[in-house]
Amino acid sequence: MIEELAKLSKSPLGNPTRLAIALYLLSRERATFAGLRKALNLTAGNLEFHLKALEDAGIVRTYYGFGKRPRKFVELTEEGVEELSEVLRVLREAVGDG
Amino acid sequence: MIEELAKLSKSPLGNPTRLAIALYLLSRERATFAGLRKALNLTAGNLEFHLKALEDAGIVRTYYGFGKRPRKFVELTEEGVEELSEVLRVLREAVGDG
Repeated sequence: MIEELAKLSKSPLGNPTRLAIALYLLSRERATFAGLRKALNLTAGNLEFHLKALEDAGIVRTYYGFGKRPRKFVELTEEGVEELSEVLRVLREAVGDG
Repeated sequence: MIEELAKLSKSPLGNPTRLAIALYLLSRERATFAGLRKALNLTAGNLEFHLKALEDAGIVRTYYGFGKRPRKFVELTEEGVEELSEVLRVLREAVGDG
């Protein structure tokens, strides 16, 4: 178990900020960049940096939605949902209750 | 809650390998460098790198015990136990069961 936890360092979600981003997206179909930034209390630059890493790893997808103001949207990919559930499995086992 | 998870990036234990090292040490009074390396399946260089970061942050203490062969021992400091329980609290809340 503890070896699996150490191996999470190799996962794109093996970083608390990126794990928080994925968890936030898991409970929503999609989120706006601004909403995500406020919820996690990140700077725009920091969020941009982590979203790029997640997008390069195929974990999230970002796109622009057009309404009155163009807004950037972010959502988990299917691959992202799978990777997140694996990371949650390992973390739950490692930090189990009590 | 999700904001607290993102903030773990600032903790010395906000890294899966370092969290695994601290969890391994929590359940033992102390561990040998060799035992820790095997249990986590790390290279000596990688373990050395993380132990240095943890020691600089006051989370662990390392020292040499002298017997037939000098061996390097590692143990959590009181501060390390406190930091670990705080990190476990945030992680349990974030990844809670189900």
